[in-house]
Amino acid sequence: MTQDIKLADYLFTRLRQLGVDSMFGVPGDYNLRLLDFVGPAGLHWVGNCNELNAAYAADGYGRIKGLSALITTYGVGELSALNGIAGAYAENTPVVHIVGTPPRPLQSSRAFMHHTFSDGDYRRFANMSIHITAAQARLEDATTAPERIDHVLRQALIHSRPVYLEVPDDMPDVLVSAANLKTEIRIPEPPSSTLEPQVLARILERLYSAKRPFILVDGESTALGIVEQLDSLIKATNWPTWTTVYGKGLVDEQLPNAYGLYAAAFGDKPAQEYFAEADLVLSFGPHNSDTNTYFYTTVPKTAVAITFSGSTVQIDNDTYRDLSAHKILSTLLNDLDTTRLVNAPAPPKQETTLSDIQDTDALAQTNFYRLVNPLFREGDIILTETGTAAHGAAFFGAVTWLSIGFMLPATLGTALAQRELNKDTASKAQTVLFIGDGSLQMTAQEISVMIREKLNIVIFIINNDGYTIERVIHGRKQVYNDVPFWRHAQALNYFGADEEHAKQNTFTARTCGELREVLDNGKIRNGEGVRLVEVFMDREDVQGALLYLLNKQLAQEKEEAEAK
Amino acid sequence: MTQDIKLADYLFTRLRQLGVDSMFGVPGDYNLRLLDFVGPAGLHWVGNCNELNAAYAADGYGRIKGLSALITTYGVGELSALNGIAGAYAENTPVVHIVGTPPRPLQSSRAFMHHTFSDGDYRRFANMSIHITAAQARLEDATTAPERIDHVLRQALIHSRPVYLEVPDDMPDVLVSAANLKTEIRIPEPPSSTLEPQVLARILERLYSAKRPFILVDGESTALGIVEQLDSLIKATNWPTWTTVYGKGLVDEQLPNAYGLYAAAFGDKPAQEYFAEADLVLSFGPHNSDTNTYFYTTVPKTAVAITFSGSTVQIDNDTYRDLSAHKILSTLLNDLDTTRLVNAPAPPKQETTLSDIQDTDALAQTNFYRLVNPLFREGDIILTETGTAAHGAAFFGAVTWLSIGFMLPATLGTALAQRELNKDTASKAQTVLFIGDGSLQMTAQEISVMIREKLNIVIFIINNDGYTIERVIHGRKQVYNDVPFWRHAQALNYFGADEEHAKQNTFTARTCGELREVLDNGKIRNGEGVRLVEVFMDREDVQGALLYLLNKQLAQEKEEAEAK
Repeated sequence: MTQDIKLADYLFTRLRQLGVDSMFGVPGDYNLRLLDFVGPAGLHWVGNCNELNAAYAADGYGRIKGLSALITTYGVGELSALNGIAGAYAENTPVVHIVGTPPRPLQSSRAFMHHTFSDGDYRRFANMSIHITAAQARLEDATTAPERIDHVLRQALIHSRPVYLEVPDDMPDVLVSAANLKTEIRIPEPPSSTLEPQVLARILERLYSAKRPFILVDGESTALGIVEQLDSLIKATNWPTWTTVYGKGLVDEQLPNAYGLYAAAFGDKPAQEYFAEADLVLSFGPHNSDTNTYFYTTVPKTAVAITFSGSTVQIDNDTYRDLSAHKILSTLLNDLDTTRLVNAPAPPKQETTLSDIQDTDALAQTNFYRLVNPLFREGDIILTETGTAAHGAAFFGAVTWLSIGFMLPATLGTALAQRELNKDTASKAQTVLFIGDGSLQMTAQEISVMIREKLNIVIFIINNDGYTIERVIHGRKQVYNDVPFWRHAQALNYFGADEEHAKQNTFTARTCGELREVLDNGKIRNGEGVRLVEVFMDREDVQGALLYLLNKQLAQEKEEAEAK
Repeated sequence: MTQDIKLADYLFTRLRQLGVDSMFGVPGDYNLRLLDFVGPAGLHWVGNCNELNAAYAADGYGRIKGLSALITTYGVGELSALNGIAGAYAENTPVVHIVGTPPRPLQSSRAFMHHTFSDGDYRRFANMSIHITAAQARLEDATTAPERIDHVLRQALIHSRPVYLEVPDDMPDVLVSAANLKTEIRIPEPPSSTLEPQVLARILERLYSAKRPFILVDGESTALGIVEQLDSLIKATNWPTWTTVYGKGLVDEQLPNAYGLYAAAFGDKPAQEYFAEADLVLSFGPHNSDTNTYFYTTVPKTAVAITFSGSTVQIDNDTYRDLSAHKILSTLLNDLDTTRLVNAPAPPKQETTLSDIQDTDALAQTNFYRLVNPLFREGDIILTETGTAAHGAAFFGAVTWLSIGFMLPATLGTALAQRELNKDTASKAQTVLFIGDGSLQMTAQEISVMIREKLNIVIFIINNDGYTIERVIHGRKQVYNDVPFWRHAQALNYFGADEEHAKQNTFTARTCGELREVLDNGKIRNGEGVRLVEVFMDREDVQGALLYLLNKQLAQEKEEAEAK
């Protein structure tokens, strides 16, 4: 006998089964009946200040927990979330965007309701989301609803991308079959391919003959489900290993053969030389946007590369399709005879030194991240916003979507996910955000939700007086790269922290000495709640690729001046 | 001989010709070259804190000045603005959404760039905007660009709706023909219709035979271009005239026959009785959403109505198409023999009284708007946010889109438009916003732009501890209708006002007496810059249609309790 269950309970049970314990979103009159089921399902409701922030927070949460969800309302709510959903698509986070829509009778009668264009067309907004989600479903009857829910959730997991789910306001308590709930939703096993033995043989041959091997781990490895296998491979080969910006965090940086970020001409010279002479580059989960590849300069030459990307493996000029990277790596790790591998000629590691930094030095990108680095402990999550922050350090940063304002709500999401994961441990892990003053203004109100949720977060606001990243790209001195003046030191109190906490947990620093003092403060090292450090840097203080852009602009200015 | 002009100069010249003097938006790496032309074109650049706020501000500006524009960047920028653009579509504001897109070479080579999905598809986001704009154009070559610009601008004016314009980053300084600039863009004269004489005759016949006539002015009258004609008609007939929520502000309320808002059962009884017995309702520019019509109860019966809507006129059951309301009203006003019109039996006017209000009374919707009303002077613009504020007063409020958070940036836009219109007068007109604490949190950062722009704005924050409008619709005591706690009284200083100004221009009130004192303060009556008044009301303090919803919910709760 099959038991029946209310539709909203079915949906939320499914989400709980997949590890979703918090629900983001904003109430609206077409989703209130659905929201009634959130708490009773054991989901923690996180009411965000607006829907874009909710989507960003869900993205952050999903990156840590493997799946996330948010609820918005039809039209006015969902449209505000689209940029966040698109970002999750661009950077492979499975986010379930649940939209409460007008009740079915109103939709079928094409009633002229608010939150519509008063033209009876109820499909516009769903049609917009098709462009930025991997699957969509409209729950319009009890019979098909469970299948449709399962379908979109499975697609979210398979593609590691957002999906879109419409729940009409009269559907949450409609009864549906609970039968499917007994079987958990899983990513289906990929079918076997007749190409496997041939591909494996070619890979092994290349591994055994390599003299200067280079392992490059990129961010789409997560969606391929091969991160643990890569750890085994990196240990088994002991070959020098780098990550891309997007791959940062996927490789254990404590390993002797882990070299951190590969940044081609914008990184250190020995690594660049080693890469140039490599006769084998094992490239995993590449994500070849301009920004993730330093203008494509970290993409290996076809002749030396073996590339695992989606369901293809590329060796030299041959592309083999319909293969599972996970299956191939399983067999490979099993078959690999490590005694036949070259003892790779490892390049020297770059040491980070602090000895050149004087206490009286003004804070700058070149000293700031080195000073802050010792603050981080195992288990901490470090987020760097698009802009100069992302280019100074690279821990968990935006990669390709690069929507400024993303990281602050994303920090809320990751901190919440971190707390949930650590809830049975004594971990004092914290979440640390680095964000510029321009980016902060986009989504600053979400600080109030961090405070309400009592999350342990340290926010470093890099106040460089405007959109420095835009200044160095173009319009160095243009007013359009200015931002309004804010008194950041008042943020905690304004956004709801009590006066005492705000006073003791707000800091500013302009010099290296001042920063050192702040970092030594127990409130920063082992404090609780939201803490805020405003650090001041020059308007044009940049390094790496951004410095290159700035110099290009300065040269052009000079040229134009001389032409006059 | 035809002169050539840079494309960006062409576009901005066109906007200036149409009365656009300020440009909203946010810089991004694909629009910086376009932004270089904003200032030199004589456009005032208003850098908003984020793109949604920019779109909302442009909507507010466009409602006052008849056209507005914002610039965002490809993907990450434009998608954040979509909800604001959709709102402009729903409520008929012509907003030009200009998007800076990647340079043409990158688009044609399908390069994997940041702000894309790294799949070479550059059309996704433009395709999304098709659903919420009246016309779209992509400026991809110099020959067609001027025509395409003119086309979308003309469509914006004709439909009074937003349009979408893509400017690749390598196009702003491409030369285009300036020939068209000599001819200003106008809404084309509608063609004549053979139906006109017949329709006119029927209308006149009905006017002369009417015994209980009722004039109802709705918001789409603006797009029909008949607002001035309506003023003449209302004066000529001297017939009792009401507006809808959306029509508020289109009728001179000082006229003896102007009755203000018609709200059916939620308004005053004499008006409702007069409407019920009316034998002729002249309905202009109806916008029949549930929210603008008090659940359709203000829509006149077909048998008594003559309705001017778009290019149709409906008389009884006959719909006449392809007619110009403007042309018909022209002839009508010319032909009308007012001596043949009934001296309409006007219902008594409701007088607003303050005598029942005690200084010790707690502030509530029922007393607050009556107390505030005398503050307003001619020329002031009053904005009421969706939520309880919109239901307490109705001056310039959201009508159908009802996206909470809209009104704060919209206030920025209207205040700027107001200043531009008054720049050669001695007007001390100000802009006044009423907004709830929940709505405020959506877009609060835009207060900093109001401050930077030195606009004369009074903000009343109605702090009723959460989303009261949602509470009364559903979930009266649910946590999802709570919002984080903020210290609103600190807003001005945090968002950049100097300490002295913030101190002298921030007020709070809990009782009617306290509010009276605040309203008497010279800073509120004749002050400058941004002023902020936080007023406290009960969590469930509502009136009118919302009170009806609240009572429905309370009755249901009682029923459920009894059933247990």
